[in-house]
Amino acid sequence: MLGSIRGMSEPRPRAVCLVSGGMDSAVALAEARDRKFDTVALSFDYGQRHRRELSAAAQVAAALGAIEHKVVVLDLRTIGGSALTSDLAVPKDRSTEAIGHGVPTTYVPARNTVFLSLALALAEVVGAQHIYLGVNALDYSGYPDCRPEFLAAFEALARVATVAGAERHEALQIHAPLLKMTKADIVRRGRELGVDFALTHTCYDPVVVGAGTLACGRCDACILRLKGFAEAGFTDPVPYAE
Amino acid sequence: MLGSIRGMSEPRPRAVCLVSGGMDSAVALAEARDRKFDTVALSFDYGQRHRRELSAAAQVAAALGAIEHKVVVLDLRTIGGSALTSDLAVPKDRSTEAIGHGVPTTYVPARNTVFLSLALALAEVVGAQHIYLGVNALDYSGYPDCRPEFLAAFEALARVATVAGAERHEALQIHAPLLKMTKADIVRRGRELGVDFALTHTCYDPVVVGAGTLACGRCDACILRLKGFAEAGFTDPVPYAE
Repeated sequence: MLGSIRGMSEPRPRAVCLVSGGMDSAVALAEARDRKFDTVALSFDYGQRHRRELSAAAQVAAALGAIEHKVVVLDLRTIGGSALTSDLAVPKDRSTEAIGHGVPTTYVPARNTVFLSLALALAEVVGAQHIYLGVNALDYSGYPDCRPEFLAAFEALARVATVAGAERHEALQIHAPLLKMTKADIVRRGRELGVDFALTHTCYDPVVVGAGTLACGRCDACILRLKGFAEAGFTDPVPYAE
Repeated sequence: MLGSIRGMSEPRPRAVCLVSGGMDSAVALAEARDRKFDTVALSFDYGQRHRRELSAAAQVAAALGAIEHKVVVLDLRTIGGSALTSDLAVPKDRSTEAIGHGVPTTYVPARNTVFLSLALALAEVVGAQHIYLGVNALDYSGYPDCRPEFLAAFEALARVATVAGAERHEALQIHAPLLKMTKADIVRRGRELGVDFALTHTCYDPVVVGAGTLACGRCDACILRLKGFAEAGFTDPVPYAE
């Protein structure tokens, strides 16, 4: 009895979860919930052409019980250098082999460094010692900021970067539970954790149809998503333009 | 002769310089110019109450010959946690001893991590391997992200965070030439380098007078600035409210 009373009154530890609106970060958020964290979802309105993902992020955060959802405005178009924030063409119809190698034009310079920095700031403000993000080193091997050594270096930085880390010696932990999973693994794990993939938005270059949008089915992100669902043996619930 | 011809045709190395509009970052920018870098100035419109500093940043960047000045919109009010981005009162009339110890309410959580991350992104886009910033470990000893160990950890992160660092092994260098200088040293060095301090804006809480603003003369930043000018034996050219 005492245990349960104590359990009710003690605040649960908090985790800041980067939630893009895509399927990977939704599963990462679900993992944090599964680990009994109170989750604070964080998204970025960064000038991405697939801004549609922000409404998906809000729905995902609500469906998975985040106690709060923050959207930080950050105009990365000023920095440039990416097809996601400029008029550069988004690659289409590439093979998964091509997607897995080299650096595509959809690479946003230092994006995960920037997003984790803001997650670190928010973690300090809300008293969280944990950050979850849905990076994956298999599908995005061309992105250096999706690799284990990057995440380890960021944890080391966090230990000296904030008052919480440097003064109170609270070691921030970065959780990337999807880091070594295939897309099919992610689909299966998400279903186990009760993620509603119909709420998620993955496409880099959505097609406007009437008042809504459809996933293009041809950009790198769509191709990897569709392949993951196919390999896991499930039908992707989101509608595609073709 | 060959040397001078080659000198004319070779592009100069580039440095991204964080320029807030304050006196410290102006001197850091002047140091980069003195080292013969082509400089790209970077400022942030982050919801700071002393937004007046952005026009100062533009003037400083132009006066010191930056080849470009970028202002990134980043609304840190969403993150909160600081008197600089909220309605919390800015401390006034504190002694320099009090300013030098503890963490004031003007601390912006993880600000230098966030700003350096965006400088890192811009460095990758413009092909710069150098970042200059005007942090100072003496006056702001309560800010962990103004310390040498923080800067070293960020350099280590940069080596694995970007395509330039991780794939092309271009080691980014962080330059903090003011790190161990007193405010009086900074005033003297700035004068040597031709910095026009009349263009700079330091005050956290400027007083609106007619169409313009005056520095308050009472916040931590004003107190340290005035003390620096006094110790260096020069008159601060900016006008104060009192």
